[in-house]
Amino acid sequence: MKLLVVGSVAFDAIETPFGKTDKILGGAATFIGLAASVLKTDVSLVSVVGGDFPQSYLDLLESRGIKTQGIEMVREGKTFFWSGRYHNDLNTRDTLVTEVNVMADFDPKVPDAAKDAEILMLGNLHPSIQLSVLEKMQKRPQLVILDTMNFWMDTALDTLLEMINKTDVITINDEEARQLSGEYSLVKAAQKIHTMGPTYVIIKKGEHGALLFHEGKIFAIPALPLEDVFDPTGAGDTFAGGFAAHLAKTSDLSFENMKSALIVGSAMASYTVEEFGTERLQKVTAEDLRTRVAAFKQLTTFEVDLYFD
Amino acid sequence: MKLLVVGSVAFDAIETPFGKTDKILGGAATFIGLAASVLKTDVSLVSVVGGDFPQSYLDLLESRGIKTQGIEMVREGKTFFWSGRYHNDLNTRDTLVTEVNVMADFDPKVPDAAKDAEILMLGNLHPSIQLSVLEKMQKRPQLVILDTMNFWMDTALDTLLEMINKTDVITINDEEARQLSGEYSLVKAAQKIHTMGPTYVIIKKGEHGALLFHEGKIFAIPALPLEDVFDPTGAGDTFAGGFAAHLAKTSDLSFENMKSALIVGSAMASYTVEEFGTERLQKVTAEDLRTRVAAFKQLTTFEVDLYFD
Repeated sequence: MKLLVVGSVAFDAIETPFGKTDKILGGAATFIGLAASVLKTDVSLVSVVGGDFPQSYLDLLESRGIKTQGIEMVREGKTFFWSGRYHNDLNTRDTLVTEVNVMADFDPKVPDAAKDAEILMLGNLHPSIQLSVLEKMQKRPQLVILDTMNFWMDTALDTLLEMINKTDVITINDEEARQLSGEYSLVKAAQKIHTMGPTYVIIKKGEHGALLFHEGKIFAIPALPLEDVFDPTGAGDTFAGGFAAHLAKTSDLSFENMKSALIVGSAMASYTVEEFGTERLQKVTAEDLRTRVAAFKQLTTFEVDLYFD
Repeated sequence: MKLLVVGSVAFDAIETPFGKTDKILGGAATFIGLAASVLKTDVSLVSVVGGDFPQSYLDLLESRGIKTQGIEMVREGKTFFWSGRYHNDLNTRDTLVTEVNVMADFDPKVPDAAKDAEILMLGNLHPSIQLSVLEKMQKRPQLVILDTMNFWMDTALDTLLEMINKTDVITINDEEARQLSGEYSLVKAAQKIHTMGPTYVIIKKGEHGALLFHEGKIFAIPALPLEDVFDPTGAGDTFAGGFAAHLAKTSDLSFENMKSALIVGSAMASYTVEEFGTERLQKVTAEDLRTRVAAFKQLTTFEVDLYFD
């Protein structure tokens, strides 16, 4: 299946306890696209950048088989820029700078060749932009995956709810699931979010893993325990990208295969956090992925002999 | 194998957002013993109670096959009493009352018949009491399991470290593991705790499950996602009890069997939190346990077809 991704292609400047970067390649669509390219998925990006965006970054994406025709370049504008500083525990961060720039007037252009994509991955953006992309598709994709965040719950809830209503799979973190649903129990939160539209609800819990809910069934995975997390930037996007790309590559949208997709996404994200930004993700090989998927298997496999009577 | 358990047998008075209790049966050894009795394990408790402790509670334990000869009754004293109020999220609580009472002078008496127990489960207590029990054994048990908490790290660290050094399996929560090791990464924390003595480190993460570390290997389980947690009191003790009892019942101290034991302990604890105190745990049947172990299997089982090349 073809995968169409909408989201930011941007500059990030990151500070962690281990070091800091100048402006480097970032953005949700970038991480999602790179994750998809590891699986050699047919993937197109829709985004917007400014005249300051280096051709070398576009070449990098193209060289990995990522279709970039949908990345508009506004010559007179500047690329979206985010800068943040992580705290010592790496679980929390302060945003230092957000320059929306060309993203403020982003009117996504979906290339004709991508309008029939079977899977649409809507990266974190204003929900009205996400909605507009859905409307530009030739027909409704077989699977619409939505990533969003609390910012849109606070500032554009009605539009977000309209978008959620048209979504098959929503990915949000645990605090956001609680905010969106008003329920503390994640099981109840997922039940409530199901009634808003999505038949699949993925709740991301960072270092504690993720949960997938569907028709009363639950699948849970831990995160791969890592000795060091170097930079968490893009981990959630990589996870979503690996998830969507696995489904596209295997052309299988069953619950069972979504479980596998969760593992692939998590394995991929476990690499992203090892270096700054996209640096590690760019180097991930099939063999790497195989290793981490096997690690997940070993991490979670058990047998219980039901002797008790 | 025989299981010997040392810990509090006590009164609890609990307030949750869903209701409150008068003084009810509580204490670490009580939960551990009841969990072991579900598996029909050969289990003896060592503890101390006051003259106010109802014979009916002792009868209850005896009726479940739990050996109570090691529970000393100090007629003129009062039983340990704890009272607490849980916050709305049930993850945090305030202690309202702690009356140590007869526990202040607890000098554990290990019945002769239990001195050769192969597995010693040291429930959360002052580490000097835990050490004294170990010294009273006929010979060193094959497996010493230690539960402890941050309070002893703050008030009796040297003695605690001496106890930890004589421990095979330590169970602590994530924050305590960080405090004990000075490491934020749980992988590094476990590595450091290994150097203190225990070859097995279990880190409990509450609603996020648990991790088992041994010789560079890691096993992770999620907690069973529950719609409602009614009262978390005793969940950690039930978990430890189910874990220790499974090992005793199966006479198998291998890493593979410890993974199973973690599942059995978690399945057991998932019942404890459904009602106040020991109420639900007292009613758990083998069939119940089978159901929840199967739920864990369903929750965590996945296949990934390694198509990527």
